[in-house]
Amino acid sequence: MLTGDDYRKSLLDGRETFFEGRRVEDIGAEPALDIAVRSVAAGYDRHYAAGPDARNPLMEAPRSIEELRDRIPMLHAVDVLTNVTYQSLMTLFTVGGRMAEGSEEFIERMHAYVDDARARDIRITECITDAKGNRANPPSRQTDPDAYVHVVDRQRDGVVIRGAKLHITGASLGHDLMVMPTKNMKAGEEEYAIACAVPVNAPGVRIVNTTYAPRVADARHFPVSSRNAIPDGFVVFDDVFVPNERIFLDGQGRYAAVFAHSLGLWERLGGIAFMVEEADEMVGAAQLIAEANGTAGIAHIQEKISELVIHATMLRAGLESAITHAERTPEGYFYPNELFTNAAKFQGAAQYNLMVRHLHDIAGGAVLTAPALSDFDNPDTGPSLRKYMSTMDGVDGEYRARLFHLIRDLTADAYGGWRFVTNIQSGGGLFAQRLVTRKHYDMDRAKQIALRSAGIEE
Amino acid sequence: MLTGDDYRKSLLDGRETFFEGRRVEDIGAEPALDIAVRSVAAGYDRHYAAGPDARNPLMEAPRSIEELRDRIPMLHAVDVLTNVTYQSLMTLFTVGGRMAEGSEEFIERMHAYVDDARARDIRITECITDAKGNRANPPSRQTDPDAYVHVVDRQRDGVVIRGAKLHITGASLGHDLMVMPTKNMKAGEEEYAIACAVPVNAPGVRIVNTTYAPRVADARHFPVSSRNAIPDGFVVFDDVFVPNERIFLDGQGRYAAVFAHSLGLWERLGGIAFMVEEADEMVGAAQLIAEANGTAGIAHIQEKISELVIHATMLRAGLESAITHAERTPEGYFYPNELFTNAAKFQGAAQYNLMVRHLHDIAGGAVLTAPALSDFDNPDTGPSLRKYMSTMDGVDGEYRARLFHLIRDLTADAYGGWRFVTNIQSGGGLFAQRLVTRKHYDMDRAKQIALRSAGIEE
Amino acid sequence: MLTGDDYRKSLLDGRETFFEGRRVEDIGAEPALDIAVRSVAAGYDRHYAAGPDARNPLMEAPRSIEELRDRIPMLHAVDVLTNVTYQSLMTLFTVGGRMAEGSEEFIERMHAYVDDARARDIRITECITDAKGNRANPPSRQTDPDAYVHVVDRQRDGVVIRGAKLHITGASLGHDLMVMPTKNMKAGEEEYAIACAVPVNAPGVRIVNTTYAPRVADARHFPVSSRNAIPDGFVVFDDVFVPNERIFLDGQGRYAAVFAHSLGLWERLGGIAFMVEEADEMVGAAQLIAEANGTAGIAHIQEKISELVIHATMLRAGLESAITHAERTPEGYFYPNELFTNAAKFQGAAQYNLMVRHLHDIAGGAVLTAPALSDFDNPDTGPSLRKYMSTMDGVDGEYRARLFHLIRDLTADAYGGWRFVTNIQSGGGLFAQRLVTRKHYDMDRAKQIALRSAGIEE
Amino acid sequence: MLTGDDYRKSLLDGRETFFEGRRVEDIGAEPALDIAVRSVAAGYDRHYAAGPDARNPLMEAPRSIEELRDRIPMLHAVDVLTNVTYQSLMTLFTVGGRMAEGSEEFIERMHAYVDDARARDIRITECITDAKGNRANPPSRQTDPDAYVHVVDRQRDGVVIRGAKLHITGASLGHDLMVMPTKNMKAGEEEYAIACAVPVNAPGVRIVNTTYAPRVADARHFPVSSRNAIPDGFVVFDDVFVPNERIFLDGQGRYAAVFAHSLGLWERLGGIAFMVEEADEMVGAAQLIAEANGTAGIAHIQEKISELVIHATMLRAGLESAITHAERTPEGYFYPNELFTNAAKFQGAAQYNLMVRHLHDIAGGAVLTAPALSDFDNPDTGPSLRKYMSTMDGVDGEYRARLFHLIRDLTADAYGGWRFVTNIQSGGGLFAQRLVTRKHYDMDRAKQIALRSAGIEE
Repeated sequence: MLTGDDYRKSLLDGRETFFEGRRVEDIGAEPALDIAVRSVAAGYDRHYAAGPDARNPLMEAPRSIEELRDRIPMLHAVDVLTNVTYQSLMTLFTVGGRMAEGSEEFIERMHAYVDDARARDIRITECITDAKGNRANPPSRQTDPDAYVHVVDRQRDGVVIRGAKLHITGASLGHDLMVMPTKNMKAGEEEYAIACAVPVNAPGVRIVNTTYAPRVADARHFPVSSRNAIPDGFVVFDDVFVPNERIFLDGQGRYAAVFAHSLGLWERLGGIAFMVEEADEMVGAAQLIAEANGTAGIAHIQEKISELVIHATMLRAGLESAITHAERTPEGYFYPNELFTNAAKFQGAAQYNLMVRHLHDIAGGAVLTAPALSDFDNPDTGPSLRKYMSTMDGVDGEYRARLFHLIRDLTADAYGGWRFVTNIQSGGGLFAQRLVTRKHYDMDRAKQIALRSAGIEE
Repeated sequence: MLTGDDYRKSLLDGRETFFEGRRVEDIGAEPALDIAVRSVAAGYDRHYAAGPDARNPLMEAPRSIEELRDRIPMLHAVDVLTNVTYQSLMTLFTVGGRMAEGSEEFIERMHAYVDDARARDIRITECITDAKGNRANPPSRQTDPDAYVHVVDRQRDGVVIRGAKLHITGASLGHDLMVMPTKNMKAGEEEYAIACAVPVNAPGVRIVNTTYAPRVADARHFPVSSRNAIPDGFVVFDDVFVPNERIFLDGQGRYAAVFAHSLGLWERLGGIAFMVEEADEMVGAAQLIAEANGTAGIAHIQEKISELVIHATMLRAGLESAITHAERTPEGYFYPNELFTNAAKFQGAAQYNLMVRHLHDIAGGAVLTAPALSDFDNPDTGPSLRKYMSTMDGVDGEYRARLFHLIRDLTADAYGGWRFVTNIQSGGGLFAQRLVTRKHYDMDRAKQIALRSAGIEE
Repeated sequence: MLTGDDYRKSLLDGRETFFEGRRVEDIGAEPALDIAVRSVAAGYDRHYAAGPDARNPLMEAPRSIEELRDRIPMLHAVDVLTNVTYQSLMTLFTVGGRMAEGSEEFIERMHAYVDDARARDIRITECITDAKGNRANPPSRQTDPDAYVHVVDRQRDGVVIRGAKLHITGASLGHDLMVMPTKNMKAGEEEYAIACAVPVNAPGVRIVNTTYAPRVADARHFPVSSRNAIPDGFVVFDDVFVPNERIFLDGQGRYAAVFAHSLGLWERLGGIAFMVEEADEMVGAAQLIAEANGTAGIAHIQEKISELVIHATMLRAGLESAITHAERTPEGYFYPNELFTNAAKFQGAAQYNLMVRHLHDIAGGAVLTAPALSDFDNPDTGPSLRKYMSTMDGVDGEYRARLFHLIRDLTADAYGGWRFVTNIQSGGGLFAQRLVTRKHYDMDRAKQIALRSAGIEE
Repeated sequence: MLTGDDYRKSLLDGRETFFEGRRVEDIGAEPALDIAVRSVAAGYDRHYAAGPDARNPLMEAPRSIEELRDRIPMLHAVDVLTNVTYQSLMTLFTVGGRMAEGSEEFIERMHAYVDDARARDIRITECITDAKGNRANPPSRQTDPDAYVHVVDRQRDGVVIRGAKLHITGASLGHDLMVMPTKNMKAGEEEYAIACAVPVNAPGVRIVNTTYAPRVADARHFPVSSRNAIPDGFVVFDDVFVPNERIFLDGQGRYAAVFAHSLGLWERLGGIAFMVEEADEMVGAAQLIAEANGTAGIAHIQEKISELVIHATMLRAGLESAITHAERTPEGYFYPNELFTNAAKFQGAAQYNLMVRHLHDIAGGAVLTAPALSDFDNPDTGPSLRKYMSTMDGVDGEYRARLFHLIRDLTADAYGGWRFVTNIQSGGGLFAQRLVTRKHYDMDRAKQIALRSAGIEE
């Protein structure tokens, strides 16, 4: 296994990564990106165990409902990149169980890859969303054939791929890119049915980063994002060679969507696991600021806190049910129930903006206008700010300002914006979640109930 | 145990019950009320077993999570009055576990009462909501002291009570009225802290019925309400004597709310168990009518059906979690988790009207204007109606009309109105459910999460 | 002009009208339908003026914004059938202005028809929704060619039409049926591009009625619907001859939708004019019942009343803006602004169910369970009901029960169901209103604003 | 009148203003604050006219509904500080009309002040929200008597005030601070009933600034906020002397709220005027990005755009009605209708978060992950980005990226967070708007309608 230091060194492998118009040679030297490096390195140190047989226990496929349930608090404790690595590996386990005969070689490669990845203790990001070109047309009918990642050359020992993958969280921070097709491929689109693992520093890979990391020196002003910000990558595959042993699907169009669906499931589970904590955090922030404002006993404030509580509880009910009703692959691995996972993800995404509105309505305008903590440090302004930001005995002005900064960082600043968008977009937009939920619902039973009620015999 | 026939006879016990200005001597002879009698009698016949030791298995207190879970489909299969009886008995079990030392005699009486009630196979309704008078004042400060049911006289072998209980579903149809205080009573309000079981035909009990039962002869037009309608009772206790052995609380104000809270819990569990089926039924009705209309493939129709599906699924998640996290009384009885039960009840009540809007938007105006089935029978109009109500091969005009009648009966007629109101009001309005959910939520944990995120040490 | 008595007599013209499986020879003799006859007759008496030149001033086309605005309170005062007649006549005025050269003859016929209709003081219903068959196919590709009303024979002096029109409010109560195509017709669908006026008693016309009228003798229990209920008609045209002078469109497919759009506009204006009053009525009912319950000062009750108030106010703003921005036909007639009319109609329909939820949450369960007024009359029960339905000095129990009956009648009984459905469906479902609003919005201006903000020059 | 240059110089008047822990001597030299200086200076240059009698026409009180209406597009064109100045001056006009006899001297001073302010062409900010301390207590019962701004000393020629005003948009950028009490004051709170105008550079005034201004050099990434960002000020009054002629209220508690209500009205009018443009801008952005994504024809995208359109239209209806129903002071000045202004402000604030959700759902994840324009400039990455961000012929990749940057800047970054919070909080939170709307609604009329419908005579 790797230590945090090992990890930092591993990033200096010649990867071509860019940020705001410049090539970044050393990610850790770029302050806006180093936040992520620090967070991942700390994660390595936390999980590190010595010895050649040491493995990160999180990365083992759950073999029972209880094991699956135990992963949830573990996921809450780890950094985003480790989370994404977990989702990538679990996807491979689930995919194996969903591919049929004739895919034995691919399944074997996946198992070998997972074993090796765990032994090397690497971090893997999931690369799914293609550039897509004109949404009205399938991959094979695009003006630009590269709108979806595809094989452009075949060699004895591997293939060459071209295209781009977008919105890849942590792409520049990991070691491997897990490339998968974004949907099912039809006859004639075999070259687009490609899944494989590509090292970040493979020749031809170029990543352009964006980040919501705070640009202000004083981290206290951004208590969450100054520790958690992780860049998203726009990943270009410019004729990248992939050796055979790293290819997990090649040309079997009918299995293309198995990858996307399996990944989608794990991504949404990760999503609701995060949302459940996020919802509890919002409840806590709402209650704390109401108490600090002296408004916790006012009826309409209590109502809004109750709605935040109910939201958090219903999301938790969805997560719990997704796990209680987990399903089993033929190989004995457990994965969460599709129906509950998707319904809860939808609920979380659909209600999130309203919950933020409640939080803002509870907290008040100082979410925006609470002075910086450096203004509290300044002897010319600090005493006045402390005096006027205090509301009563026992509520320190600076403490109250910190709560406002928390709420601003979570919901009304760059990181807050990232949450607004990713809560909807991760795992597909609201439309996708509506679709998948409908697909997994027992519609026949529902129709039977209605027919019986209508007095109609079938 | 009783047969349906025994039950019918048991109602001719001199009870004073009224309907639309008239005394009703024989409930079964009043068509609008007989619907309920038929439904309860059928339930008796279904569960009947011979022999003096025969008992209805539903009425046993669950001794494990699995037993509690197994009750849910049983509840879906029984009539409303049996459901209410189940809630009343379970309340007594739960109350026992929540009362402390010094209440031994009351607990004993409750156990004896439950045993007797099960042996006699009677039906019991829960009487909780008082007339309440001026909501701004507690019972002891009302202009009319009878605004809440209270003890007006004490005798050696029992007490005399006076007051009224409102919204008592099935009051005229059962054998006993389970009277409980609606909230905690303070010092000086001891006479209001009274819980007891009163026979429906006890002297001084008078019940005024209201019903949403259809008044039209042709039951096909009301496929659900013509089988399920059960009257609500306005129950007046006009100096009713209650013998000691039927008194379960008398003067201990601090336990008054234990009854209300315990009943509220079982009522809300019953509520969400019903809502979950109701939601699935609405999904089924929506899908069937969309198919019959030929619109099941249209994007906005599918979106609305998806939202119905997600609603049904989230309610089910709430119900499942309420049971998975069930709690145990000291005596070993299991009762559902308060937090999840209340959150799900809120969600179901709060979203119900929107779900009906979706269903109406999917179905179209023929929910109201589909002709009666007797118009289909009429040779002068039937062929035209059949022709013009059909939409394509395989969709019969009369079949489609029946679906519209189902939707009208469920959501756009007298029974539909009953559902709109009771979905919100049963177990207390939205405000009550907000309050209870907040009370049972782990607020300390939520605050810890937020403080940690804010970088504030405690 | 006609008196109420003249009107009653005019209905005995041999019209073939049906109700619940039976032919109805005399509509006024059928209690469930006579409610409507009484209401229309009273309207005739109210507007009656003697003399051959007397005309109903409401039926004049408005020639200024002020005149258009003055119509709104007049519409609030009249019965539903008169309202529908107004919409039908205004549609003909608007259509005229939207048809181009080559339609002179049709326009002339419309003017002549309107003059005659006003002189004869008749009532006219608008017949637009066809049976439609398979929604996926246009009229010309239906299995049953009669799925849309069409011309099946042409004669020297007129045409013969066949088909059905659904959801025709008041069809059996009026004198003429204004038949219009439901949408634009393509080449090859000329026979479906037919608009005309058909007497209700024309041979081949058959109407099947449905109604939400209360079936209980005591009208006090249904204070609104016992006065306002008007049946909807399922109108069958079984080879009905229409003389040339009553044909307003015949074969010009490109104008087919002009009728539907014009009617839709006036229908939606009528819809929001009704919704605005309805919304104020709901506010009033909410405030009165909160006062009678003694809860008008409770914070969460006040919040819900505020939301009802805001809803009512925004609808009024939409109505006002639709009139302030009215548009003018070339002939100088004014019609409401499409954009505001449609946006307000959408808002009213989309929010209605939530507003009812608020009202139910404010009022409480007695919406359903308030005893009948005949129970108040009964000396055995009346005193108790009066006592226990009263909440404080000055709030009489029977008065409070009447408020509950009002709310039940408006929102939780058969008429309430009719409002739920028609609020969405009249003038097309939510989808239709989304579509029309988008079409009439100044999208180019909105795009210019966004491009300027984005710093993009065009 | 002043030119932009004059304005810049006017700021170097010794004002004590702070930012992130430091005293700022020259606001224009601080990049994050200079954005606002540039924007205000440009506004001065745009309106500049030479000569001693030149005046800014916007700052004249409207004397008719038409003049009031004409102000709206003018307000859209000016900078935030000018807007705030307009609101401050209009407030003084409205206040005058609402104060009764005995206040002549104050009214005279206000008129003199307005004349002088217009002649000197200064900018004025409105200072209303106090620190407030413990919300449960009125000003006179706070532990810290300075929790509300109050008079601490009286001198022959003026008074000395102490306290703080929070959330003062543009405080450091203007010339005068218009101090007003935040609510009505009771007997014994006369010292808190103080309204006055204080120069920003008066001794004892200290302002701590916060800002959502972008901190990244490349303004193209923040197309809106890089031009519009204006800091909010936390304004401390540390024993500030105010001469008599600048005092507009002193001790008349019953008029204290007149200032707050008048300002609230103009603030909310400004709010909805801004919201209406903002809503149209969001529609434009949604439509443009849907077209650029190639998804403008997809049903669920169109539905969401329709809902944005309807939202924008209903807000406009509210604004229009507020002006159409404007009211008149005794002196002949016009101010917007309270009811419509408040209802529209509520609707805008309550729906805003949902509208952003729609926009994010329409746009997709590239709102966050669109690369910087400098990455497009970089020859190593630009061609790939252009290639893969393009979706079809005619949609340039960089153009599309710019649209994403616009949406991110408006809704998912620091400025977006400012909009989320201020949309709710400006002019008071949702609760305040509910309250004011209820107060101005014609409740008696609504109750009459309901009573009539209930068949209850009064």
